[in-house]
Amino acid sequence: MSKEVKPESVSLNALGTAAAPESELLCIYGTGDLGRSLGLRLLQSGYRVVYGSRRPQSCGPLPQGAQVMSHAAASQSAGLVFICIHREHYEFLEALAPQLKGKVLVDVSNNLKKNIYPEANAEYLQRLVPGAHVVKGFNTLSAWALQNGPTDANRQVYLCGNSAEAKQAVAEAATKLGFSVLDRGSLSAARELEDFPLQLFPEWRLPLRVAVGLTAFFFFYVLLRDVVYTYVYEGKDISFRIMVSLANKVFPIVSLIMLALCYLPGVIAAVLQLYRGTKYKRFPNWLDRWMLCRKQLGLLALGFAFLHVLYTLVIPIRYYVRFRISARIISQIKDNETSEFDNTSAWRSDSYYSVGILGFAVYLLLGITSLPSVSNALSWREFSFVQSKLGYLTVFLCTLHTYLYGWNRFLKSYAYQWYTPPGYMLSLVLPSVVLVLKLLLMLPCVDRTLTRIRQGWERTDPEDDSKKSLLT
Amino acid sequence: MSKEVKPESVSLNALGTAAAPESELLCIYGTGDLGRSLGLRLLQSGYRVVYGSRRPQSCGPLPQGAQVMSHAAASQSAGLVFICIHREHYEFLEALAPQLKGKVLVDVSNNLKKNIYPEANAEYLQRLVPGAHVVKGFNTLSAWALQNGPTDANRQVYLCGNSAEAKQAVAEAATKLGFSVLDRGSLSAARELEDFPLQLFPEWRLPLRVAVGLTAFFFFYVLLRDVVYTYVYEGKDISFRIMVSLANKVFPIVSLIMLALCYLPGVIAAVLQLYRGTKYKRFPNWLDRWMLCRKQLGLLALGFAFLHVLYTLVIPIRYYVRFRISARIISQIKDNETSEFDNTSAWRSDSYYSVGILGFAVYLLLGITSLPSVSNALSWREFSFVQSKLGYLTVFLCTLHTYLYGWNRFLKSYAYQWYTPPGYMLSLVLPSVVLVLKLLLMLPCVDRTLTRIRQGWERTDPEDDSKKSLLT
Amino acid sequence: MSKEVKPESVSLNALGTAAAPESELLCIYGTGDLGRSLGLRLLQSGYRVVYGSRRPQSCGPLPQGAQVMSHAAASQSAGLVFICIHREHYEFLEALAPQLKGKVLVDVSNNLKKNIYPEANAEYLQRLVPGAHVVKGFNTLSAWALQNGPTDANRQVYLCGNSAEAKQAVAEAATKLGFSVLDRGSLSAARELEDFPLQLFPEWRLPLRVAVGLTAFFFFYVLLRDVVYTYVYEGKDISFRIMVSLANKVFPIVSLIMLALCYLPGVIAAVLQLYRGTKYKRFPNWLDRWMLCRKQLGLLALGFAFLHVLYTLVIPIRYYVRFRISARIISQIKDNETSEFDNTSAWRSDSYYSVGILGFAVYLLLGITSLPSVSNALSWREFSFVQSKLGYLTVFLCTLHTYLYGWNRFLKSYAYQWYTPPGYMLSLVLPSVVLVLKLLLMLPCVDRTLTRIRQGWERTDPEDDSKKSLLT
Repeated sequence: MSKEVKPESVSLNALGTAAAPESELLCIYGTGDLGRSLGLRLLQSGYRVVYGSRRPQSCGPLPQGAQVMSHAAASQSAGLVFICIHREHYEFLEALAPQLKGKVLVDVSNNLKKNIYPEANAEYLQRLVPGAHVVKGFNTLSAWALQNGPTDANRQVYLCGNSAEAKQAVAEAATKLGFSVLDRGSLSAARELEDFPLQLFPEWRLPLRVAVGLTAFFFFYVLLRDVVYTYVYEGKDISFRIMVSLANKVFPIVSLIMLALCYLPGVIAAVLQLYRGTKYKRFPNWLDRWMLCRKQLGLLALGFAFLHVLYTLVIPIRYYVRFRISARIISQIKDNETSEFDNTSAWRSDSYYSVGILGFAVYLLLGITSLPSVSNALSWREFSFVQSKLGYLTVFLCTLHTYLYGWNRFLKSYAYQWYTPPGYMLSLVLPSVVLVLKLLLMLPCVDRTLTRIRQGWERTDPEDDSKKSLLT
Repeated sequence: MSKEVKPESVSLNALGTAAAPESELLCIYGTGDLGRSLGLRLLQSGYRVVYGSRRPQSCGPLPQGAQVMSHAAASQSAGLVFICIHREHYEFLEALAPQLKGKVLVDVSNNLKKNIYPEANAEYLQRLVPGAHVVKGFNTLSAWALQNGPTDANRQVYLCGNSAEAKQAVAEAATKLGFSVLDRGSLSAARELEDFPLQLFPEWRLPLRVAVGLTAFFFFYVLLRDVVYTYVYEGKDISFRIMVSLANKVFPIVSLIMLALCYLPGVIAAVLQLYRGTKYKRFPNWLDRWMLCRKQLGLLALGFAFLHVLYTLVIPIRYYVRFRISARIISQIKDNETSEFDNTSAWRSDSYYSVGILGFAVYLLLGITSLPSVSNALSWREFSFVQSKLGYLTVFLCTLHTYLYGWNRFLKSYAYQWYTPPGYMLSLVLPSVVLVLKLLLMLPCVDRTLTRIRQGWERTDPEDDSKKSLLT
Repeated sequence: MSKEVKPESVSLNALGTAAAPESELLCIYGTGDLGRSLGLRLLQSGYRVVYGSRRPQSCGPLPQGAQVMSHAAASQSAGLVFICIHREHYEFLEALAPQLKGKVLVDVSNNLKKNIYPEANAEYLQRLVPGAHVVKGFNTLSAWALQNGPTDANRQVYLCGNSAEAKQAVAEAATKLGFSVLDRGSLSAARELEDFPLQLFPEWRLPLRVAVGLTAFFFFYVLLRDVVYTYVYEGKDISFRIMVSLANKVFPIVSLIMLALCYLPGVIAAVLQLYRGTKYKRFPNWLDRWMLCRKQLGLLALGFAFLHVLYTLVIPIRYYVRFRISARIISQIKDNETSEFDNTSAWRSDSYYSVGILGFAVYLLLGITSLPSVSNALSWREFSFVQSKLGYLTVFLCTLHTYLYGWNRFLKSYAYQWYTPPGYMLSLVLPSVVLVLKLLLMLPCVDRTLTRIRQGWERTDPEDDSKKSLLT
């Protein structure tokens, strides 16, 4: 792949024969990895590239076809300068301000952590070189994408900057490199763009922790009640049940609780608004945070529900189940037992499955509408219809499914071994609370007041001074 | 959250210390809920806000930090004016036309119903204040999003307007509030933007009605033939079968019929084009409407197919099924029966399942490609390949699956209790028609003519006058 | 639908009463199918349309309300000219260059094949009429969409051109026709836009061929070992097993191999970078191509895994399985056998299923994140976390699932009928290699070097000249 070239012939070649005379010249400040990767890609896309370097003579190998000069000389003939330098070394650019006046500076830098500087790198750059048009961009791409062109999660280049013309010029270059461009407004959005590549599912952390915590708790709870209890009282080792039976107890429990956690904050918020008589008071911070991760809570709960479905459907092909069924049939024959068909059991079993399937189907629908492209295509009236109406329908169906599972065992004492209730009973608490509260909020008198509050109406208290403190 | 402030200090504070002197001043006309929500959000994003009000002295509580003045005074120092007033009260703006000349007016209004006014609110506003640059926008957001910033279905702000600079200015503000902006062109798109928040799945209504109608019909049909018939003639109560067995008969029937309904209009359209000898004549209205809801018909059919899959897979863990299987084994042993393994039954049963699974898999693929982000990534050649080729493959596989289900029972008289055919036979009519017609259309001679017609060729009839009437 | 109109009244009507005087006049060159379709749509959207034709008197039926003139006359009063002519006939436009100076020319043409001309049609047009502003656009729409407005895969109009104002003008028209516009930059992107409608899943071809090849090979392999072997040695016809049992052997095998093929190139690339000591050398072409189709390989493998899941879950309702189970129970009773419950078998069976389910769930998650709208919403740090960490977890779980399936049969000679290993053993080779290599690459010393190389560090060899040849 690599051809050997005489270094001295590089510059002549680049500006002479290799590149057509009309192709545009771009300047790159910085000859590190980022500068080299970007330069290579620009050259491959038909641009001419000149590097600006502190030591033009000894800056290491550069892409073939690129020139290298001092910073001042390099930017002289180029309108666009890519700043491929770490923010820590930006200061020297201040001295170059006269040469950079009117040029478009593309700030591609990222920081290693959030909030280590008071202002965004691009804003700092703009302050150092006030005469230039700073455009923040390309920083959300991986180095791989900068070198090799767009890949899956690296197709979009976000730009922001105060000059529309400057952004247009950078957008042209990005398009030529094969990326699609999204304008994010003025340079004040630079901070957001710089934080973007650092984030690792920030809004998923809390829900994931909740999921892991619930899973761990219920796993040990069920382990104790099932495996350990059986071992202690019956001396039987049924530890193999951990893999499927216990998992299939824990997953639906966690799923139902998290589904309830997803709709609980909305109900709490409504109660709070009713109590306060206004919507203009901000919610407490914990409630705000909780409401912001509802989508993630719901999607995780859907994941657990999906596992529950698969673990349930796999039941009849398990060795244990097949063994038990044939053992029962054999013992029935040997003992000459006859079992009567129980219509109630048939109703219960079939309703239980049917409600569960419908609940899962509606749930999946909710999940699909939360895909970005689907929810973008919905008006908010449609979106809130789906997420609210269908959401509570899901809660209702899944809760009913669990009640049907329990059936008449709620009152049987043998279900409460070691004085603990079975896991599924615990999982019913929260969704039942949500459903009851929601039902109360749907009473006409309550609903009417709530609607008025949400349209801006405020309950006026006798004390007038409370009114003044409404908005913060 | 709320701090008490002395009212008289508000304005001083807002323009003095609280906001940095360089932050931009925006004006909001209207101090209702919408105006307050928007103002709060603007203040939180670093803007200075001044309200224009009819009664600046007595307009109720406003967000802390905002000024309030008369309309004329308020807009004087601001370039951007948000009109948070109901359309019914727009008239007074006509008198302000001189003051608003050259300003950017953002029309955020919505109506309560579609088509109650002859022109869009924004166009009406533009007519009242011809010297201003009206931009329609923000109206597709929920009040919640306006007050609290972007949420899931409220991330995009659609703008339209005749002045590119005005749109750019509004886009900047929207971006600063955290929204992403989509330019929808000139002010003539305002009507569309104003209708958007009012829609509630308009294109899903007809398909949903069809689905509900078919489901209801086939539910009663199957109920009669199965449960009622058994009760009348055998005196047995098998009503528990409603929950799973009957549901699993109704869902696949409805799914197959709706799948056929999804491909039938395309076949009819082709026949019509062949018959007319031209593609330039418009289709009858009912066919047009039908063709426009094919996607929704198909997705609903997929939903029913999904339910059918789950209801089928849940069969072996039902109480009823387990009871029946063990009862059969026990009776076999008691009667010392021996059943022979039937190779044909094995072939039939396995083919039936295999074809069904493949049909469902291809169907799911169709569903995935109809996700907006996936279909946007496809060229129309790819999209039509998937939707047409794979679509007919789905119809074929699902129809074959149903024929294999029927197998040799089509000719057995006992299947026709009460002289009615089983539901699945009824469901086979439409897909069979679709497949036969499609096969005819694929005959080389027919296909060639159709292709030519679709490329613009027209069959010329002896009578010349028919030619003149081609285009309407 | 079609009304009869007197031809001579058309032009008067169009410019007189029918269209409001202020509606914009657009010009269309070419009266073929494309020109007629587009014109019809423009007229319906409220534009006035004038056609330019070589023979204005005899150009066949045109949409009612459109005028037709000579080319020169037609473009005189219109600012925007749609060129609905095949590229082969562009030459005559050169003579019209003076009349077209300053006009916006919209090139909507497509070619029948890629790379038949040295330059894009739009660039050729720009060369012929240098004074005009050529905008490439609308060509990615189907003729159907051009005539009837946006449909599913035809919602977006891609534009490119060198003049921002020209693009803006075309974008306005596109928006008015109901399309959403995506600016793809300068006219140099025209080639890409012209190639787009011709593509038919180019990046899926290689993976599809691999999938078909693997499926065919393993189908015959398994057919030979199972059906033919049984027929030859036991004289039993078990050909019915082809439909489900054999399919359910072939699908997971192909899925696992393709999953490994999806992660193998990444491992090979890392080894290559380690060996070369630099990341700046390009990979061999076969590796580049392989890496570019990893996503498609993975999605196909997911499809096969999905089929495997359905084929597995359908097992207990198959006639064959039900027959065999009841036959075994009956023979057990007749022979008075008692089978002991085997704890190890229970552990193995349950672990096998559990690991498989978890593997499938993680796999599905990978598939969901590769949906365009989801991967666009992720930062590349998040995307690479999912695709790499969760990807290798999937490989590990699915490989473990297969090892658990084999269990202790790896050492049993009866598994190797006709001296061939069972298919699942063959499928384990590649994923095991991938996992071992990945484990080696994760050793701290290796990982550290690799990370440094990927950050731009290069191993310097004693020979200095090798350094110069680094970049090509």
